[in-house]
Formats: sequence, C-alpha cells, structure tokens
Amino acid sequence: MKNNFGFVLIKPQLGQNIGSCARVLKNFGFSKLSIVNPRDGWPNYKARMTSVGAYDMLQKVKVYKNTLDSIKNFDLVFSTTARKRNINKKHISISSFIKSIKKNKRLKIGIMFGPEASGLSNEDLSYSNSIIQIPTSKKFSSMNLSHSMTVICYEIFKSMYSNRFKKEKKILKFSSKKSVAKLLKHLTNLLEEKKFFLPKEKKEAMLLNINNLFYRFELSDKEVRVLASIISSLSKKNRKHN
Amino acid sequence: MKNNFGFVLIKPQLGQNIGSCARVLKNFGFSKLSIVNPRDGWPNYKARMTSVGAYDMLQKVKVYKNTLDSIKNFDLVFSTTARKRNINKKHISISSFIKSIKKNKRLKIGIMFGPEASGLSNEDLSYSNSIIQIPTSKKFSSMNLSHSMTVICYEIFKSMYSNRFKKEKKILKFSSKKSVAKLLKHLTNLLEEKKFFLPKEKKEAMLLNINNLFYRFELSDKEVRVLASIISSLSKKNRKHN
Repeated sequence: MKNNFGFVLIKPQLGQNIGSCARVLKNFGFSKLSIVNPRDGWPNYKARMTSVGAYDMLQKVKVYKNTLDSIKNFDLVFSTTARKRNINKKHISISSFIKSIKKNKRLKIGIMFGPEASGLSNEDLSYSNSIIQIPTSKKFSSMNLSHSMTVICYEIFKSMYSNRFKKEKKILKFSSKKSVAKLLKHLTNLLEEKKFFLPKEKKEAMLLNINNLFYRFELSDKEVRVLASIISSLSKKNRKHN
Repeated sequence: MKNNFGFVLIKPQLGQNIGSCARVLKNFGFSKLSIVNPRDGWPNYKARMTSVGAYDMLQKVKVYKNTLDSIKNFDLVFSTTARKRNINKKHISISSFIKSIKKNKRLKIGIMFGPEASGLSNEDLSYSNSIIQIPTSKKFSSMNLSHSMTVICYEIFKSMYSNRFKKEKKILKFSSKKSVAKLLKHLTNLLEEKKFFLPKEKKEAMLLNINNLFYRFELSDKEVRVLASIISSLSKKNRKHN
C-alpha cells in the first residue's frame, strides 16, 4: 500500500534538501521519489551526503524535464503549501487529505513539493486535484522542504498504522500490591523506631500520605528492590570511614 | 501557552541541524531553544546558515554544560527516540504525549533530543518522565534531528489549534525538576555516608537506577516534602524509648 504513493520534488534548488527528503521517505517506509529539473543537475554530491542511510533511494530517483511528465502515472495528485495560494483550487487540511487517501486505497497517489524559495508555480498547482495546506504559525510559514515532507509522510504513515497506535503497550511490569505492602511495612517499622510518627494523633494521616505515595508510583519488582535497599541502608548506623 | 514548551538539544553535532531545528520551532510558533554542549561550540556559523528566517531564535538560545542544568526549570520532561530503548522508563506514543500535555497545560514542559549519531544516553533518559517514541519504519528508524523535532512540534501545534484544550479539571501540580534534584542530592549524600555505593565500580549504575526511579515519579511539592522527611528520619540515629 505504501507503494501507491509517489513523491515529486519540483525544481529543487539544494542537493542537501533532496538527500534529506530521501531520508524522510525511507524513515516512513516509502520508496518512490521523482525530481523535476533539479537546479544543480543530477546526480548531486550534496544530496548523497544528507541522505545518510537512504542512498539507495537516490539511486533509483526518476528525473523528469517537466511537471506534467512526472505526474502522468498517478490517479490523484496533491500539491503542498504552507501559505494559502491565490488560485481557484481547493485547499484542504491534512486531515481531509488523510480521509481522501483512506477512501481511495487502490489509487496511485502523487504528492508534489515546490522549490525552496518560491513554492509551486500556479501552473504546477493546476495539475493537482487539491492543495494540502500545512498548518504553521502565521508569522513564519516558510518551511524547509524536507520538513514539509516530514509532516506529510508522518501523517500518511500514522494513518496506516493507527490500529497499532491505539494499543499502548505496557512496558513496565508492575510489582504486585503484595510486595509494595511488604516494602511499606518494612519502611513504617523503621520509621516507628526512629520516632517518625509523632505526635501520635497525626500518625494515621502520616501513614495515609505514605501509602498514597507508594501505591501511586506503580513500581516494578526491580524498583521495589532498589527502594528496599535504599531504605535499609539509610536506617543503618553510620559506619566509620576506613 | 506555547511559551510553556522548551526544547533542548543534547550534545548536537552539526550546526546545520541546530539551525534547522530553530527554523522548525519558529514555523510552529515556539520560541525556547536550549543546547547542552554543542560539539562545534557556540555561536555556530552553519547553524546561522540553515536557520534562514529564524536567526532571532539562535540569538536567544541558552547554552548549558550539562543536561540536569538545562532541564531544572521544567515541571515535566519528555525525551524522544525512534527506536525502543532498553531502560525501565515508560515509552509513550505521540498521542499519549499529546494527551498528557493537554492535561497539564499549566506546567512547564521540556522536550529533549539526543545527539545525531547515538541518541540520548541512559543518563539523559533517566531525567525524563517518559520517552516519546516517534513511529518510523522498522527498517530505517534513524531520523534526522530536525525531522524528529518537526514531528513533535507539528503535533503540539496541531493539538492546540484543532480541539482547543478542554477546560481543565483537576491539575496535579508537579514539583519542578529542581526540587527533585535537591531531594536526590540529599538522598545520595546520606547514602554515601552509609556506604551504600559499594563496590565503587557499581556506583554509576546505582545512581542511574535511583535517578530513573525518582524522576519517573512525577512528584508533587507535598510528596517531595514527605519523601524528604522520610529520608531524613530514616537516616537519624535510633533514639532510646522513653
């Protein structure tokens, strides 16, 4: 299903950004990258440098001479922008974009990103079905090319795996209430010896505070052991330094 | 409200990435960036180059010598990772992270990002309340620093503007990291006196365990006081019964 998505960089200026884009695509499991008229030619040394572990992506990049050729094989094409564009084309939110790709799972979907300085031209935008507007601060909407791509790829990736996201794995194994109770017994006995629970009429409230605290912690077995050893050690008599 | 968020780069290696991070922060309306031990010193020319319109962010960066100092003024600290880390610290999804910040909108929240090559150390992770796991392809999880930051900033930004934060119900007031640090200093000094950290070569691992434990607890001010009094009391000499 991820192979249904193709990403197209229109006239990118900086090789660094092309390499960074390749890396993001691979981070989120995508594999199809096309470039239309890269300013500094192709292949590009700087792109290789920033691609890091995604050099394989660059080796299979498709390079085109014009936008129309680059998108011919897609069924649905989206363009991207951070600022609202003055063109008679539907601007959609990212969540509408995600709804749309979920409804069209069998289609080949292309996503275009414009040049760093100017963004997509009105002609490029005209080839798209709609324009995805990436939300940003109104005061500074100019995003780095690979950052725009990060947002889009991350959202698609998330939408595909949303089921996995719902299940939050419990990683910590909580210790049984029994061993926490034992720890607390140990602690309160020692505190009793140290005359902690004075004055007497406050003892009940103090015990309650301690219980509240330790039962809230959701301790693992290991943590119970660490605390038990701290408690024992603290209550020992000071030993003379050797 | 965006000013409640601070972003901390731990030992970043490349100036380019620092500049890119500043740009992302400004794109999403954030303003607080700190750096711990940037490899190539500070200020950094390459950072300036990639910050583009966000040079003002770099001019007010705070630079620290160690992680603990950089996070002392936050109430809640999150670390970030793309791969699952083998440490007894809760890994949470981005959506859990968002839920958590919505519940705690009056708190000062810090988010740590590790060095490019290695990610955050276990010690750095130990200072955080939980670890946000950024979802990626299992085949290639190594994300560019500014791309990780893009995902996190974008999600916070989106959560603020999509469904406005609900009227707060009950807010747990977490104690600042500073008072937890003070508590831990008190505890470790006492344990040192009691010869807890023996054999010597285990001391580092033992300290790590203790840090992990106490920074995870999300203590309130009251709880810090309760624990401090327990610790002091335990370490006292036994008094004779009257």
